[in-house]
Amino acid sequence: MISRPRGTRDFTPEEMRRRRWLESRMREVFESYGYEEIATPTFEHLDLFTLKSGEGVIDETYAFEDKSGRKLALRPELTAPVMRFYVERFQMETKPLKFYYFGNCFRYDRPQKGRYREFWQFGCEMIGSDRPEAIAELISTAYSVLRQSGLKSIVVRVGNLDILRRFLDGIGARDAEIMRLIDKKEFGELERRMGEEEYGKFMDFIASNNLDAIEFEEAERMREIVSYLEDFGVPYSIDLSIARGLDYYVGVVFEMDAPRLGAEKQLCGGGEYNIVPLLGGRKIPTSGFAIGFDRTLLALEMEGFDFSEERRRVYVAYMEGMLREAIKVARKLRGEGIITEMDIMGRSIRKSLDYANKKGIKNVVIVAPDEWKEGKIVLKNMETGEQENVSIEEVMEKI
Amino acid sequence: MISRPRGTRDFTPEEMRRRRWLESRMREVFESYGYEEIATPTFEHLDLFTLKSGEGVIDETYAFEDKSGRKLALRPELTAPVMRFYVERFQMETKPLKFYYFGNCFRYDRPQKGRYREFWQFGCEMIGSDRPEAIAELISTAYSVLRQSGLKSIVVRVGNLDILRRFLDGIGARDAEIMRLIDKKEFGELERRMGEEEYGKFMDFIASNNLDAIEFEEAERMREIVSYLEDFGVPYSIDLSIARGLDYYVGVVFEMDAPRLGAEKQLCGGGEYNIVPLLGGRKIPTSGFAIGFDRTLLALEMEGFDFSEERRRVYVAYMEGMLREAIKVARKLRGEGIITEMDIMGRSIRKSLDYANKKGIKNVVIVAPDEWKEGKIVLKNMETGEQENVSIEEVMEKI
Repeated sequence: MISRPRGTRDFTPEEMRRRRWLESRMREVFESYGYEEIATPTFEHLDLFTLKSGEGVIDETYAFEDKSGRKLALRPELTAPVMRFYVERFQMETKPLKFYYFGNCFRYDRPQKGRYREFWQFGCEMIGSDRPEAIAELISTAYSVLRQSGLKSIVVRVGNLDILRRFLDGIGARDAEIMRLIDKKEFGELERRMGEEEYGKFMDFIASNNLDAIEFEEAERMREIVSYLEDFGVPYSIDLSIARGLDYYVGVVFEMDAPRLGAEKQLCGGGEYNIVPLLGGRKIPTSGFAIGFDRTLLALEMEGFDFSEERRRVYVAYMEGMLREAIKVARKLRGEGIITEMDIMGRSIRKSLDYANKKGIKNVVIVAPDEWKEGKIVLKNMETGEQENVSIEEVMEKI
Repeated sequence: MISRPRGTRDFTPEEMRRRRWLESRMREVFESYGYEEIATPTFEHLDLFTLKSGEGVIDETYAFEDKSGRKLALRPELTAPVMRFYVERFQMETKPLKFYYFGNCFRYDRPQKGRYREFWQFGCEMIGSDRPEAIAELISTAYSVLRQSGLKSIVVRVGNLDILRRFLDGIGARDAEIMRLIDKKEFGELERRMGEEEYGKFMDFIASNNLDAIEFEEAERMREIVSYLEDFGVPYSIDLSIARGLDYYVGVVFEMDAPRLGAEKQLCGGGEYNIVPLLGGRKIPTSGFAIGFDRTLLALEMEGFDFSEERRRVYVAYMEGMLREAIKVARKLRGEGIITEMDIMGRSIRKSLDYANKKGIKNVVIVAPDEWKEGKIVLKNMETGEQENVSIEEVMEKI
């Protein structure tokens, strides 16, 4: 017996119903903000990702050569592909461009709870504006996607890399390794590297959430952005310890968490970045975020969200000799978009009712000869046990 | 500049709207027939596909080793993964099981018009019944998915491998190579291989579409199935030359074409097969089909199908000093699910109107100080040029 690859998942019908429901809800919110969906291939040239994230990314990437020796990679994230597409195709379009995506990504990682080798991300890229209201709208989009999906507990933290870097310059402690340690929250190592006094100043700095106390000019723009966040109705806190991993992030950065998820609580990360020139395009303000779809679903499930489905559903059973008439009934019901399961096992009425019960189907239609002659079919409610003879049109109204 | 991999595609917002519309329509039809969606990983152990389709499949497959030396493959099709999932998880469930899927597949093939290295398939598997009405319902599902997506011209051809194999046995011409030549419609080679007399008999056999003239017992079941096809309202023709490529197909097979697409006209192929024991499961009747999603979309476009979108859309512009009020308006409209693009470029009203015109947005809302004091905003219809002062609630009614 061949099993599925380690670290991947199959999804049952019940899981797919939840996933498709959440997907559709998130899609609606992105679109209500004027974002338009685009899509890119599942694999790309490996270079695209090393250019953006450095050679280190290869260790965690499914990279392979095709039969012509091209180095390809299953995409580990979607910002680089979307920006590649932008540079190839959309540079001349009127700005802003607001693109969203929903796609699977891959990482070659030790499988663990809540982390899979194939996972799904929603995300977006906003190209062409770095005005304060544009950045506030971006953060509002991320918050609304989570909030309007039904999530109750969301923590929004907003930071600023220009301010963080200016502060680190001021205490003579800025380098790539320190940024990495801040991002990974490895405070012990950070203290050793910075020295005790500088580390103390750093801890005071990140504990402060008062933008008014910061004198760098970058704080002025930041104050304007968060004032618009209030207009957009986004609850937030200032967190100047957000470092994001990579060099091309600039200015505002933000993360959103579902505290219930514990160590793997981060649902969303994003900010302003400068990646287009890396890909050979003309410099332009860009920003965006990605939302972990699997984790958001998990967070909703942990909050006890009600995913119950609303679509109408019926089972069609028939007495001997009435199969053709049952087909007619099923055709009409399906034509109305009603989920219609017809007996295709040649079951008796009793066994059909048992089956419907087991599958939790509330409405059963029985096609029987006497009733059929009078233009009627039997509609049985499996919850109450009641049954009545009705026309097909009445079935459509009653279920 | 890094380009996208050869033979793959990016999709623009306009293409994605069409794709998501068609996806959603097809999904509804599968569900109306009582099929439930499942999903499997994008890559599988390579063995899964060689077991089903033979070692030959490797030449056309994206196969690679992961860092532990496991041989993996990007899925070339979805029947084997779905059946693997069935064997692992659903063997004990009450039958029938009716699963559908929508996913991307990969083939390492010379890219050409209408054939891509990454492509999308809808499909389904029905497990647990081979009764005539079950097979007729399966064919009806495939037909309805295409028909109810709006496709006008669909040719349904139904064949039977038991009958074809019995006939070939009768003229002493049955072997794997002949089945392959029939499948590929290589008639010249077939004549050379069969000999002139047998080839003549074979051509007479496949030209006949009269099941009543066939004396094998298999024809009896076939006649019953096609009689139910009439009850399901499926127009069909008999085509006994359908061979499908692979050995595990048994009994009824069918294909559906969009004649406008020329050489690449086949949209759907399926039938009855016996694959579960190959995967280590207990023998059980199974059947299913796959529909080429990209080709179906192409066929709809060639028929001039109207994909025009119905969702309400508005652009919010604002006069100087009215940005916070504009944010309020945008929040309310977005909360109603209206696609709301707000100016985030700091544009003048005139430039905002130019932009809305260019993007084909019919409704523009202008937030202006005098009207705001009276609880109103300006609604401008870009098609007629008319404008009026209305409340936000009136905007929601009018657009």
